[in-house]
Amino acid sequence: MYVDHPLGPQERVALSREQAHYLFGVMRLDVGADVSLFNGRDGEWRALVAAASKKSGVLDCVVQTKPLQMPPDLWLVFAPIKKDRTSFIVEKAAELGAARIVPLQTEYTQSANRVRQDRLQAHALEAAEQCGGTYVPEVAELQKFAKMLDTWNPTRRILFCDEAMVDKPLILPTNAGPWAILIGPEGGFSDKERDRLNSMLCAHAISLGPRILRADTAAVAAMTLWQQAMGDWT
Amino acid sequence: MYVDHPLGPQERVALSREQAHYLFGVMRLDVGADVSLFNGRDGEWRALVAAASKKSGVLDCVVQTKPLQMPPDLWLVFAPIKKDRTSFIVEKAAELGAARIVPLQTEYTQSANRVRQDRLQAHALEAAEQCGGTYVPEVAELQKFAKMLDTWNPTRRILFCDEAMVDKPLILPTNAGPWAILIGPEGGFSDKERDRLNSMLCAHAISLGPRILRADTAAVAAMTLWQQAMGDWT
Repeated sequence: MYVDHPLGPQERVALSREQAHYLFGVMRLDVGADVSLFNGRDGEWRALVAAASKKSGVLDCVVQTKPLQMPPDLWLVFAPIKKDRTSFIVEKAAELGAARIVPLQTEYTQSANRVRQDRLQAHALEAAEQCGGTYVPEVAELQKFAKMLDTWNPTRRILFCDEAMVDKPLILPTNAGPWAILIGPEGGFSDKERDRLNSMLCAHAISLGPRILRADTAAVAAMTLWQQAMGDWT
Repeated sequence: MYVDHPLGPQERVALSREQAHYLFGVMRLDVGADVSLFNGRDGEWRALVAAASKKSGVLDCVVQTKPLQMPPDLWLVFAPIKKDRTSFIVEKAAELGAARIVPLQTEYTQSANRVRQDRLQAHALEAAEQCGGTYVPEVAELQKFAKMLDTWNPTRRILFCDEAMVDKPLILPTNAGPWAILIGPEGGFSDKERDRLNSMLCAHAISLGPRILRADTAAVAAMTLWQQAMGDWT
């Protein structure tokens, strides 16, 4: 479980009402039970329930069970699509080890006005909890395509998935260092956006095979390929 | 749109009631409109609406717009999980180019009794329609782990994702030929199942990085890696 509290020897963690409800109401734990905690900074700690009621509770840290495992310096920048698929992309980014998640408004983005940063951040947190992570990627506020690229730091390379390359072979770069993966909306990037990206020396277009992929599939596939070629999978 | 009818010069395709409802009721097409058709055998054809009513219709094939694009000889064999995530895996397998999809009952599979082959086949068809595919992977009936492996043809290699290898580097085989990707349920394969797989010469265990992935994420990641290393992406 994620807690916004320091974890370490002798640390006592007071639970929020929601956390107490989950542990003691839903999971039916009681005093003395074991809980795994992480806060995104101090790794994973085993804690014991010291006090439990319906609306509150206290956990005592016992021992660190995992060190903090930082993901590589990878951002996932994606154009929001339908609600379920946007939640899905955020979940998968947290699981696959993105350090930061940035929703992006592009020319063909339909759903930008429905993007709620707080909900997406909660999805990222839940995904980290589910997969036993020790780190929660930050979800940024919605950004606009041109404005983001105008102020882009070129030491962060960009890998973008270009539907126009659907018949070309996949050739992955292998440069170490900070990267961002850019995923367009259904319908892809506009010609103007594609030209802009192709004019940037730090941007690399890749093909994701001979079939057209949905945006959520492209996001997972691109993160997988990046992790294998340049991340912490090998 | 998928039709179960030969496609070719002078072919006339009679629509089912559901198809007529979709084209003329939902999409509001009329006589003379263009529709793209595929049947999984004859590629994609442009057809014209020759007759349209609420409950029926006729399309005339005009010209082939794409040849049949067969996926590589890859099976996705997976343990069904929650309903939404099972549908998702089938959708992604169709998009990413699996030739056959096999639901598998393993020791830790919770949801086997809720697997409906006809619904999963409909999902695969819809995914092929959505991504402009010309081929629909066959969804098999649910199979049992031991029985399937007892009669396994060893010329089809098996790539299985082993949670026990979570800290090992990812090393992909590169053998050409028929393959099956095996994805276990939440909780992974049992020790007995893992021993059985490791005893098969045609089976290769891989790690999918240092984070625990959900089964649906593992399915997409493994298909992506396979397509890149041994499939039609490069």
